[in-house]
Amino acid sequence: MKLATFEVDTPVGPVERLGAVDESTESDDAGDVALVDLTAAYGAVLEAEGEPAPAALARAHVPPAMIAFLERGDRAIEDAREALEYAAETDAERGPSGATIRYEPGEYRLLAPLPRPNSLRDCMAIEEHVQNSMDGEIADVWYELPVYYKGNADSVVAPGETVRWPDYSEIMDYELEIAAVIGKRGRDIAADEADEYIAGYTVFNDFSARDIQGEEMDGRLGPAKGKDFANGLGPYFVPREDIDVLEAPMTARIDGEVWSAGTVDEMYHSFAEIVAHVSQSETLHPGDVIGSGTVGEGCGLELGRWLSDGDTVALEVEGIGTLEHTVVR
Amino acid sequence: MKLATFEVDTPVGPVERLGAVDESTESDDAGDVALVDLTAAYGAVLEAEGEPAPAALARAHVPPAMIAFLERGDRAIEDAREALEYAAETDAERGPSGATIRYEPGEYRLLAPLPRPNSLRDCMAIEEHVQNSMDGEIADVWYELPVYYKGNADSVVAPGETVRWPDYSEIMDYELEIAAVIGKRGRDIAADEADEYIAGYTVFNDFSARDIQGEEMDGRLGPAKGKDFANGLGPYFVPREDIDVLEAPMTARIDGEVWSAGTVDEMYHSFAEIVAHVSQSETLHPGDVIGSGTVGEGCGLELGRWLSDGDTVALEVEGIGTLEHTVVR
Repeated sequence: MKLATFEVDTPVGPVERLGAVDESTESDDAGDVALVDLTAAYGAVLEAEGEPAPAALARAHVPPAMIAFLERGDRAIEDAREALEYAAETDAERGPSGATIRYEPGEYRLLAPLPRPNSLRDCMAIEEHVQNSMDGEIADVWYELPVYYKGNADSVVAPGETVRWPDYSEIMDYELEIAAVIGKRGRDIAADEADEYIAGYTVFNDFSARDIQGEEMDGRLGPAKGKDFANGLGPYFVPREDIDVLEAPMTARIDGEVWSAGTVDEMYHSFAEIVAHVSQSETLHPGDVIGSGTVGEGCGLELGRWLSDGDTVALEVEGIGTLEHTVVR
Repeated sequence: MKLATFEVDTPVGPVERLGAVDESTESDDAGDVALVDLTAAYGAVLEAEGEPAPAALARAHVPPAMIAFLERGDRAIEDAREALEYAAETDAERGPSGATIRYEPGEYRLLAPLPRPNSLRDCMAIEEHVQNSMDGEIADVWYELPVYYKGNADSVVAPGETVRWPDYSEIMDYELEIAAVIGKRGRDIAADEADEYIAGYTVFNDFSARDIQGEEMDGRLGPAKGKDFANGLGPYFVPREDIDVLEAPMTARIDGEVWSAGTVDEMYHSFAEIVAHVSQSETLHPGDVIGSGTVGEGCGLELGRWLSDGDTVALEVEGIGTLEHTVVR
């Protein structure tokens, strides 16, 4: 199951909804598939069962906003699966009060699965990337704990949205990553129980303005301006049971040319170890997003190549989808 | 005017409200003053004017949650002043539907003015602190731009709340700072217009676990675990017109003994320059919080002293108040 946040136009303004890709129409291009509105479809399930208030109950079981949905943890995922199956089996067109169940390509705008995560952290857990980025000098601490910085949760760009190249930078780069999405509140989580706190995964492009990033890191805080202008997340959110995230092939294509390929199987610190580390003396919340770090040779910095004005960056993770953005000065 | 977020017990559970210190009862101890409920008091103003729906209109004009209040910018501050004056002049006890206007000490729990900021950034804009903390080696970039890291907005502790000392740290420290609170949405803000984006100020204690912080900074990301377990904000939020923030004397007392004293007048990069820098290619939102950085000799690291189990840290900024926390292992 691939979950999406999308927006539809209505006479009272745009409305945000939660969807799942209709698997009978699946395409490689995000936005080029039919989406099932999960809240409407779950309402139809309840209506068929004779529930007297199906719309209100559906909004509580399958909230149309991703973070509220994640608050219900695994139960929300189960209800979403039931809704998607019902829509596929019955070809129902309308939920309670006539809500549309199925949107065809062009009838919706895809947003990031979490248009505004509760928080954004990003690790650099893959040794080859660190080796390539730091001129071979890896600090001892890197092996001891999964170091990370915190990103700007307000700077998420939608799949397909143009990324504005900051005026203060000349050197623009992408980073090929997978992000784990927290689905259960927790603190001081043990590593062997940490997987159940991860609701699922999405593709993460940690766009990087390398010139200012390097300067900031000399100042020993951050990075901030080097990262915070744009965070690509999406196109879909895939529950953890539905993907073998360590084995999923990952590719970065710039204007169609493959620049990077790899998997996060190379992670020195696992997602579970990262969740355990981050949650020490801090509470993790549904909607927190944690990046893996860049895969080996997963960015231009490692390849000695930079993005140019107008380049389209397409990050593909098999089983999740292709996240595409064009950078424009 | 000193604004507060506070919580009162009700038969339907605790309810969060927005207040202002009743200046006739002012005391040096946070929590030891009467608070005027600004939403209820503004409702009383409207009721006295003959407004048919005073409660609903008051909630829109003076929302009882700080971020929603800040969204109205300077207009919210004006309405709050009117409400506070009305309460002082009339001694009115009840707003629309019998809402309590005045809470005496013991009738409320003080929360941080922003219990969950939209975001948290922290600079280190005071040269003496950097000089003392970095063994005299200040990177060139420090003079060129106000470097900062991003904190954990979910880790704010209430005034008076016990700070839990993380298990992973032996070296606990405080940092004496002032934080600016953004009250107006903006992007690419010019430095000479930046002041109007700052709604006001509060005291900020950037608690620091120095051992792990040092390790993390060797890894060149963050800091994260060294900072994210606790952020003290409060006790009050003071609108920018009501305080000369650069001249306000600041003091840190540990168990009553003065360890630090200074002002943020020493800032090398001003708050306006910081807002201009941060907002480049990033949108600032009401409820974003930005720390000044520590004043010179404003933390134990600079003094060669550390906090002990059970120590009470009281940070006082004249014109804002005293923010107190006890650290406990």
